[in-house]
Amino acid sequence: MSHNSFGQLFRITTWGESHGKAIGCVVDGCPPGIPITEAEIQAELDRRRPGQSRFTTQRQEPDQVKILSGVFEDDRTGGPVTTGTPISLLIENVDQRSRDYSEIRDRYRPGHADYTYDVKYGVRDYRGGGRSSARETAMRVAAGAIARKILPDVTIRGALVELGGIAIDRDRFDWAETANNPFFSPDKEAAKKWAAHLDEIRKSGSSVGAIVEVVAEGVPAGIGAPIYGKLDQDLASAMMSINAVKGVEIGNGFEAARIRGEENADPMRAGNDGRPRFLSNNAGGVLGGISTGQPVVVRFAVKPTSSILTPVPSVTATGEEVDVFTKGRHDPCVGIRAVPVGEAMMALVLADHYLRQRAQSGSQT
Amino acid sequence: MSHNSFGQLFRITTWGESHGKAIGCVVDGCPPGIPITEAEIQAELDRRRPGQSRFTTQRQEPDQVKILSGVFEDDRTGGPVTTGTPISLLIENVDQRSRDYSEIRDRYRPGHADYTYDVKYGVRDYRGGGRSSARETAMRVAAGAIARKILPDVTIRGALVELGGIAIDRDRFDWAETANNPFFSPDKEAAKKWAAHLDEIRKSGSSVGAIVEVVAEGVPAGIGAPIYGKLDQDLASAMMSINAVKGVEIGNGFEAARIRGEENADPMRAGNDGRPRFLSNNAGGVLGGISTGQPVVVRFAVKPTSSILTPVPSVTATGEEVDVFTKGRHDPCVGIRAVPVGEAMMALVLADHYLRQRAQSGSQT
Amino acid sequence: MSHNSFGQLFRITTWGESHGKAIGCVVDGCPPGIPITEAEIQAELDRRRPGQSRFTTQRQEPDQVKILSGVFEDDRTGGPVTTGTPISLLIENVDQRSRDYSEIRDRYRPGHADYTYDVKYGVRDYRGGGRSSARETAMRVAAGAIARKILPDVTIRGALVELGGIAIDRDRFDWAETANNPFFSPDKEAAKKWAAHLDEIRKSGSSVGAIVEVVAEGVPAGIGAPIYGKLDQDLASAMMSINAVKGVEIGNGFEAARIRGEENADPMRAGNDGRPRFLSNNAGGVLGGISTGQPVVVRFAVKPTSSILTPVPSVTATGEEVDVFTKGRHDPCVGIRAVPVGEAMMALVLADHYLRQRAQSGSQT
Amino acid sequence: MSHNSFGQLFRITTWGESHGKAIGCVVDGCPPGIPITEAEIQAELDRRRPGQSRFTTQRQEPDQVKILSGVFEDDRTGGPVTTGTPISLLIENVDQRSRDYSEIRDRYRPGHADYTYDVKYGVRDYRGGGRSSARETAMRVAAGAIARKILPDVTIRGALVELGGIAIDRDRFDWAETANNPFFSPDKEAAKKWAAHLDEIRKSGSSVGAIVEVVAEGVPAGIGAPIYGKLDQDLASAMMSINAVKGVEIGNGFEAARIRGEENADPMRAGNDGRPRFLSNNAGGVLGGISTGQPVVVRFAVKPTSSILTPVPSVTATGEEVDVFTKGRHDPCVGIRAVPVGEAMMALVLADHYLRQRAQSGSQT
Repeated sequence: MSHNSFGQLFRITTWGESHGKAIGCVVDGCPPGIPITEAEIQAELDRRRPGQSRFTTQRQEPDQVKILSGVFEDDRTGGPVTTGTPISLLIENVDQRSRDYSEIRDRYRPGHADYTYDVKYGVRDYRGGGRSSARETAMRVAAGAIARKILPDVTIRGALVELGGIAIDRDRFDWAETANNPFFSPDKEAAKKWAAHLDEIRKSGSSVGAIVEVVAEGVPAGIGAPIYGKLDQDLASAMMSINAVKGVEIGNGFEAARIRGEENADPMRAGNDGRPRFLSNNAGGVLGGISTGQPVVVRFAVKPTSSILTPVPSVTATGEEVDVFTKGRHDPCVGIRAVPVGEAMMALVLADHYLRQRAQSGSQT
Repeated sequence: MSHNSFGQLFRITTWGESHGKAIGCVVDGCPPGIPITEAEIQAELDRRRPGQSRFTTQRQEPDQVKILSGVFEDDRTGGPVTTGTPISLLIENVDQRSRDYSEIRDRYRPGHADYTYDVKYGVRDYRGGGRSSARETAMRVAAGAIARKILPDVTIRGALVELGGIAIDRDRFDWAETANNPFFSPDKEAAKKWAAHLDEIRKSGSSVGAIVEVVAEGVPAGIGAPIYGKLDQDLASAMMSINAVKGVEIGNGFEAARIRGEENADPMRAGNDGRPRFLSNNAGGVLGGISTGQPVVVRFAVKPTSSILTPVPSVTATGEEVDVFTKGRHDPCVGIRAVPVGEAMMALVLADHYLRQRAQSGSQT
Repeated sequence: MSHNSFGQLFRITTWGESHGKAIGCVVDGCPPGIPITEAEIQAELDRRRPGQSRFTTQRQEPDQVKILSGVFEDDRTGGPVTTGTPISLLIENVDQRSRDYSEIRDRYRPGHADYTYDVKYGVRDYRGGGRSSARETAMRVAAGAIARKILPDVTIRGALVELGGIAIDRDRFDWAETANNPFFSPDKEAAKKWAAHLDEIRKSGSSVGAIVEVVAEGVPAGIGAPIYGKLDQDLASAMMSINAVKGVEIGNGFEAARIRGEENADPMRAGNDGRPRFLSNNAGGVLGGISTGQPVVVRFAVKPTSSILTPVPSVTATGEEVDVFTKGRHDPCVGIRAVPVGEAMMALVLADHYLRQRAQSGSQT
Repeated sequence: MSHNSFGQLFRITTWGESHGKAIGCVVDGCPPGIPITEAEIQAELDRRRPGQSRFTTQRQEPDQVKILSGVFEDDRTGGPVTTGTPISLLIENVDQRSRDYSEIRDRYRPGHADYTYDVKYGVRDYRGGGRSSARETAMRVAAGAIARKILPDVTIRGALVELGGIAIDRDRFDWAETANNPFFSPDKEAAKKWAAHLDEIRKSGSSVGAIVEVVAEGVPAGIGAPIYGKLDQDLASAMMSINAVKGVEIGNGFEAARIRGEENADPMRAGNDGRPRFLSNNAGGVLGGISTGQPVVVRFAVKPTSSILTPVPSVTATGEEVDVFTKGRHDPCVGIRAVPVGEAMMALVLADHYLRQRAQSGSQT
């Protein structure tokens, strides 16, 4: 049992505080022989990196990842491959500005973990949220880049589908579009509306929430497990473990509770490959905790950034009443940078289940 | 790693198929000295038992639980208490009617795990869904009854807050009402509407979904863990592991994605006990994965029963196209009986985190 | 984490007390499609069953095992196969004679877990040792019978190689002989000496210890894992978890500490199959925690039975000084019946590592 | 499940290869508020460090440890304390001399993991044994230094009790002596004999094995768990996971198999504190997997160093027959430096069981 590890067979353990010396991750259980380079991991990290548009925090972290172990040159190719031993990843913290945080040392920021950490531990690194900072998610993205490499035929993509209550138009959904705007929006028009809305939000010292959708295509049928190792259960756990996430749904999710059985059923017809062909995907690619072969679809709700310029009543560690507002550099919508994090979590869950599948299924030993 | 276990320190392992000889559960990690009787467990099971109204399946399972180990008479009180060793619970299956299922042996019921189990395992007990049947949840309720006993000051209650798209009126929310109608509805008026609606649904051979809300009051601040042992993460995992659940949310959940930072923040004032007093509970009692001392609030969406009289296109194991409809005895809304199951999962998650808390926190060894 | 589970991917959870209603085991993680019958499990149990000679306890337990879940008829063969779901095994306790134990309710039997359980738990089922009774090992043997079935090319055999300080003659070692005497002795002559010695021991109200050797042949090279998942580490854990075991060694074990590097090295020559051929097996088939392809050899020391007729000074739960001697029916040498238990533990460890191997190795995904 | 983690609640995950950039460890589950400094950890590391006498390898590794996370200044004392978040420890590799190893890239060193790693993984960092190098044990010692801090009243000490077949004289056993000679010998005279013997061994290009004894005093009764969480089982696992260890015993160990029940029993008399006072400690402080309150005593056998100057027949990765001898800098007796490693493993096991004890015992919640 570890409170800082995720996954069973493909298992990550992250460590580090927002304003400590470094943050890092140990990836254990990665099969040997997988080609991987620092550059490939860096490419994923760069998608999450702050400071890339006016809509994310201006904190300048190059987030330069180093591989410290577990990768060695392959005899045959000469290129670096995993060796089956633990892969240690490290990012040094460089733009820390701890002074920004000194004044909130004793005041509990509403919506943050300041109070709950204090109650639980009695001591904490208060600088920038310490361990509870979303900075930890950089290591998820780094580990996710490795996880993707063991899912050769799976395409994992994420998109923002709603921001500040403004949803995309599903008819305009275009994955290619997500690379063309600072919101990972699959809908060009929505991106424009969001830009205008977020400019206003930022100026007013407020923040907004968002909904992220992550889709994995190419997952074969039969991945997952019944009862307490369900694929959708692990996805719910994965997404709810991301900072600021308050809800998760699979397939049509909460909508399923509002339609009838015959509407919700995904009819099947005979497929060309001898397998059933589903005519719809309300299930989001999972039945009984096991993948159907359809795209695996998960959505999660991200609450509005808790660090805002607008003062909110709060108390100090010694019980004094204060108004708290945050002058630091913060994302007006943390949901945006949650998109690559959601993709990474999907990759981590799938990689883990792929390895489980190898171990436990198949009718022959 | 186990696909049939839940929890880390308070850990259950369930086994058994819907139409096998019995179903059962091993509860491991329960502290010693907790008074518990079969009657107490039975009382919880009876709340979930089928056949209690015309709105649930007419399958008649007495679901009589037996304690086979882990409980012994206490020297001091003479009454039965847990001994710290594993508690084995068993329910024999009596009303099996396997014949109902023979004809669906080879045809994949849409919305069920028939196809995915076949792909994964190549062999399955097809009778009544076998291992994938919601019958397994009886053992969750039984184990949850034990979990409740180690949470002496916590009140866990569940309610149906929406059925077939018809929501309760929050102003009429009354926990006492949940015992007065066959829906666990906290709103007397909603229960009437649901009865009428469900009669119609049942007659038309259809089914509807529902939304369940579970609330734990009395959970002290400081329960949970950061990063990958978050209380809300484990609740999401717990609820999503229940059959037919497609979405989970904590506190205001998806609604959080649609409001502004200052609306979503839960302001704090100084409390009488030296601890902060929260003025609202959008967070649902969890910040940074750790309890705040407010009620812990979780909601989950249950899809409409997949077993319906209305025919749905499907295929057989050998690829033949068929229309599937289910003549067996089924709940028109499985969400109703999911209420005690949701309560049980809340109890299991909290019991586990209580034990974790004892192990890992506090500034003194 | 569970104190009553063993294994990671092939995982057993046992429950039950010596004089409770039943004992049982849940086997989780067994791949589907493995043919298994109650009779096959019973055959292994019968080898461990008490009362088969004058050298083991006269307690008459038929130890009749029932499979309650996880096994179903195979479509193709019609015979029972595992389904991939948890296999629940149960043995009812029939010859309990609880009255034998009433007088030791409050007195701590030296060498037993009476005192330590009382300190740890404050309450225990004292009848026959309750949970700490070696009766629990019946379930290991039952589960081991299933584990053997997923190791089709591995032969696991155990033998008693020393009893009461009298060792076998290695030159007379003959596996076939182990079935011909009540000691699992591979040396016919040693068996005769042991019979005479043990008759004397039994008459004098004493007991003796023994050393068990378990060998697995046919384990391919590459099974195990480095650092903390070592094959020999897991074997040490497995054997030390058996009641009354005080020492474990792999290959030449403690002898390795007494010879020189060049004597201890196992030289290699080129084998016919392109793999190294080892000229000796001091390593006991494991290097760096991973199997070499040679026989895996483990030995463990079993202390003399603690329940003896000879009085030993002790105290009661209330601190009174007493002399304790045991009139019940006990094995004069518990090491004998530990032989099938040792075999079962070898099978459980190997089955677990086989599944791990499938998941995590191989240079290709 | 992780092949590179040890412990359940106090859990370490190590990473790194002998000649990679660095080695490291993540300690998860350490309670908050424990004072700890780099200097304290360094002090333990220095006891294990190579190059301190002519009897250990001349490799010069300063082994300078850095704490990268999980420790922060305490408000009250101003000194560094654990925060309850993961503690990341790192040691950079400086004296690597990779050239020493280039020629053994393809030849399997007898007694090493070269062949088994190649079979398992197909690729490995061959420099200095890579991941299988005993260099990994530095991180165990570092983590053990933290584990000791949460066992305030426990004294853990290790000693070499046999080297090259020459045992200490138990009558001369003096813990204070272990700090006065380069062997951790508790017997001054034995140390002299060992020095002479080892000089000869070293000159002849050979190596010898050794036996290490580790004793924990001050462990209260009631630590451990029955069946599969036994304290002695976890100690066996811990010690057998150390490189080159081939045998483990608890208390009188294998000797128990050679004496009678009445000799092996540890008699009890009434103690002054109301608890039993044991008159002997054959059990090594553990009964039924749970501590008795007596010293916990474990011994383990370390095989002779496999890297020797004497040529041993072997093969190459391509099946060529060669004679292998090792010119690098190696310990003639790796058992010596295993002493602090054994102490560290004892500390890690006890720390883990202390936390488990807090979680799961006590008759009151």
